[in-house]
Formats: sequence, C-alpha cells, structure tokens
Amino acid sequence: MQNLGYYNGSIGALDELTVPFNDRVHFFGDGVYEATFTRNHKVFALEEHIDRFYRSAAMVDIKIPMEKAEMATLIRDLVNRVDNPEQQVYFQITRGTQPRNHTYPEDMVGNFWVVLKPMPIKDIGMEVKAILREDIRFHQCHIKTLNLLPAVMYSQEAARAGVYEAILYRTPNQSGLGGELCGGMPTRVTECAHSNVHIINEKGEFQTAPLDNLILPGIARAHLLTACRELGIPVNETPFTVDEMLNAKEVLISSSSAPGLRCVEIEGKPVGGQAPEVVAALQKWVRDEIFAATERD
Amino acid sequence: MQNLGYYNGSIGALDELTVPFNDRVHFFGDGVYEATFTRNHKVFALEEHIDRFYRSAAMVDIKIPMEKAEMATLIRDLVNRVDNPEQQVYFQITRGTQPRNHTYPEDMVGNFWVVLKPMPIKDIGMEVKAILREDIRFHQCHIKTLNLLPAVMYSQEAARAGVYEAILYRTPNQSGLGGELCGGMPTRVTECAHSNVHIINEKGEFQTAPLDNLILPGIARAHLLTACRELGIPVNETPFTVDEMLNAKEVLISSSSAPGLRCVEIEGKPVGGQAPEVVAALQKWVRDEIFAATERD
Repeated sequence: MQNLGYYNGSIGALDELTVPFNDRVHFFGDGVYEATFTRNHKVFALEEHIDRFYRSAAMVDIKIPMEKAEMATLIRDLVNRVDNPEQQVYFQITRGTQPRNHTYPEDMVGNFWVVLKPMPIKDIGMEVKAILREDIRFHQCHIKTLNLLPAVMYSQEAARAGVYEAILYRTPNQSGLGGELCGGMPTRVTECAHSNVHIINEKGEFQTAPLDNLILPGIARAHLLTACRELGIPVNETPFTVDEMLNAKEVLISSSSAPGLRCVEIEGKPVGGQAPEVVAALQKWVRDEIFAATERD
Repeated sequence: MQNLGYYNGSIGALDELTVPFNDRVHFFGDGVYEATFTRNHKVFALEEHIDRFYRSAAMVDIKIPMEKAEMATLIRDLVNRVDNPEQQVYFQITRGTQPRNHTYPEDMVGNFWVVLKPMPIKDIGMEVKAILREDIRFHQCHIKTLNLLPAVMYSQEAARAGVYEAILYRTPNQSGLGGELCGGMPTRVTECAHSNVHIINEKGEFQTAPLDNLILPGIARAHLLTACRELGIPVNETPFTVDEMLNAKEVLISSSSAPGLRCVEIEGKPVGGQAPEVVAALQKWVRDEIFAATERD
C-alpha cells in the first residue's frame, strides 16, 4: 500500500476509509496522539511514544482498549504493509462514540486510529528560521491532545512567513487581570507550534524549559538531554526569556521527526552561530542513534 | 426521522452516517460550531447564531462554502425532516479534507455538518448547582471552536459532583511566571464549561464579564442584556471576582438551551436568593420571547 489508515480494526487507504459520525473527536477534539517515524520499516523509539501515549490518555481519562505490547505489535504489523521504508507513524485514541454530549459514560472505551504515510527522514543538518508569537494555548500543554487549533494557526503563520516554526512565549499578564510585568521574568519561552526549543546559553549550557504544564515532554528533547550527558555538555532545565534566546550562542529546535535543527534566524534577525561544534556534536549523536536503531537486520 | 446528521450534502441517521478519515477535524479539532434549538419545528435565533458562526470561522480562517441565507434555508429544511418538534440544532464547519498536516492550502474550503436530535425545551425555572474550577483554557475563548477538551473535563467533573455546571475563574499567575497576586484583581470569574455566568451584584446591577478574549459572546447573554434594558435593570459589563460572585444577590447561568438558570449553590455553599423578583422578571421576559418567536403559524 502507498499509505494506510486504521480505525478500530478497519484498514484502508487514507482517502477511502471512513469514520462514524458520532466519534466524539468530531465535536470536542476529544483525543490524544503520538507521532514518530520509520527507517527500513523499523519504528524509532516506539516504546517511548507508547508510554507517553498511555500517560496522555490517562490524564484526560480516555480508556485505551488494548495493552501496550499489543499496540506495539499492531503498529509494527501495519508499518510492514506500507511499501515505503520511511514513513510517518501517527496514532491517536479518541474517547469513544456517542451522540454529541459534553459528558461521557464512565465505562466508555476509546477508538484507536493509525495513520501511516511516506515521509523521508529529515536532514538534521538543515538550518531553519522561525517567527516569534505569544503563547495563547491552554495550560495543559504537557498532554499531547488533539486540541491543536492554535498549533495550526501558528504553523500557517510560519508557512506564510516562509519559515519552519513559530517559537512561543508567555507573558505575566496573560490571564487578563492586568498584572503586567508583575515580578519574575518579563517573558518565558515555552516551545514551538509543533517542536520544543532549546538554547546553548552564554555559559555553554544546553538550556531547555523545565517539564511543567506549559510544554510537551518531547521525546527528542529527552534524547538530546541524554546526548548532553554522554558528551559532557552541561544541562540547565530552567526557563529562559526571549532576550536570552535571541542572544544565545545557539538555538535548537527539536521534534521526533526533526530531532535537533539549528535555528539561524528569528523574526528576520540572525541568531546563534557561536557554538557550532556543540551543535555538530549533538546532531552527530542524534543521527548515529537513529541510524543504529533502524538498521536493516 | 428520529434524528439527523448532515455532512456536505449527505444525510443520514446519526448512527449510520460516516465521515472521511482525512477530515482535518480528526487531527486538530480544526473547526467551529453553533448550537440552538427548535420549538414547533421553528429554530430560535437562527440568524444570530449564523452571524456568530461566520465570525468564528473568519477568526480561524475557515472558508464556509455557502452564503448565510442558503445556510438558514438548508437548516430549516433539515429541521422539518425530524419528527420531534423540539430539537437541538447543532452545526459546525471543519477546515477541509487533507492527509494530516498542520498547514493547509490557502484555497481550502470547509466541510459543513449539521446534527439534529430531540431535545425538550428546558425549564428555565430549574434551580442549579455548580462547582468552581480554575480556567486553564486557551486565550481565544471568544471563538466557538471545537477545541473543547477542557470543557469536556470540567463538565464531567460537574456531573461526577452531581451539579449542573463548572464555573471558571482566572488567576494572575497563570502564565507560569510566578507573578502571584501581582496587582489588579485576585481572581476573575470568566464563564462556565458550556455557559456564561452573571450576577445581580450588591448594587442591584446585572453584572457580567465584558466581551474580551476570555469569554464566549453568548447569544443568551445578549438577550438577557436586552431584557435588562427593557425591564430597567442596570447593567454592568466589568469583571467580577469569585468572592463577589459568592456574595452576590443572585447568580445566573445562561446558554442557548438554558438561557437564564438560577444558581443556588457553588461548591456546596448556598449562593444568591436575595433578589428573586429580578430573576423572575428576567426569566419571564426570556421565556416570553422564546415562546413568541416559536409559535405555530
């Protein structure tokens, strides 16, 4: 097959499969998801993605109708039905099927979806640009939910600006209470529309936002932290401001499908470029890990 | 028919109709919606809901593939195919159909959905209870989007507590910047999981949050404001705190399907009950307006 959709046991081409009208995702974006990729038909970091998937589902009280091992087997089987050895592996669980109603039965069991389509491995050496936007998303960004309309709007703005990502920041007066610059930091960089963002700061540390409710605990982020420890690069998991990012030695953007891109321009102004050897070492580590994990048998 | 689903020209029973797998709503909650009701097969305030629907769609750059008058005619035609004279009238537009991708073609045209199902007119004299929760939603609550997972979670919490609604408030330090109680109000009541909330304050004014980005511009809210003007009740459109609500003369909760319910208990403590004549006058005005607008010909 060229691509593949899976919905609760039904399998078909993405443009042929259909879904019941009463799936709750239609009315509430009521679900959570994961995305990774294959090389040589091997799924990268599948168990880590499945672990986070079950954590996301539990945080919004969605019941997944299978065990983790069964899900891994199912996904690996589906991957082998698609011709292309390099695929995006996307899966989601929606809360269930019911005529529209905010509340749901306590015993409702979720609907499991998989989407596979060709996606060439991205060149991690690619340099990217970004725009900067205020982060107006909800305050549970640590859960990988399907409530992604802000991510769509930010991504479209980035595309219109001809850049790769939108980097997001929070300000202290966002709650509409008029408490401007009320103490603490004037701004806080959180993450991007569909990536995490990190800096090499003036001390040479790999600095990245801490894992609270304002950012997604990225799996690529976790692998970069492992790389730092193995390479002897000091790590700093505290928030940084927009100014600190704009003046950092380097800015890195990571997601599962592009796990460590160098950002060279934000809002039209050059950034980074002052620690190329650190970026190169991290990118080599990440690339080597992916290639080793997805070698042909 | 007992109930009816409509999707881009296809009509069927809600549990039989299906939707293409690649509708963007599946992956991003990428759409906006409206809900009202019928009595005697007549749709209440349809033009007002359609106006707000087009405004919501424009704010998230979704293109509706028909004119307003055509939509009104279509909805009225569908309403007449359902047996029950009292129906919920729900409609939504999703951005379009495309394999999953955050960005979308600039010329993409939306998919139009309608859901009709029996819903008896609610007794506006019903007294209700509520719980109180911090409002962690995104900062574009003035747009009626399908990113409703927080509303689902709040509603389920309310249902588990055996109450009608969850009333929401914002605090100044929500942006994660540590600016606790940094000036301005200590809290601000915004709205509920699926309703607006208002008080009769100590001066006897009908006080309701202003129309900014933190609340939905409720159509029932607008009708209540008209009622106040006609009845000579002073109106105050400024934010109120949780304490002001808990000590108010009355607390009212409004949505299109329940346009002015008296809230008598919040988090287990009695509230209101000090201006019953104002509540009764508003409820009579609202009931009379609905009944006059939906009389049999």
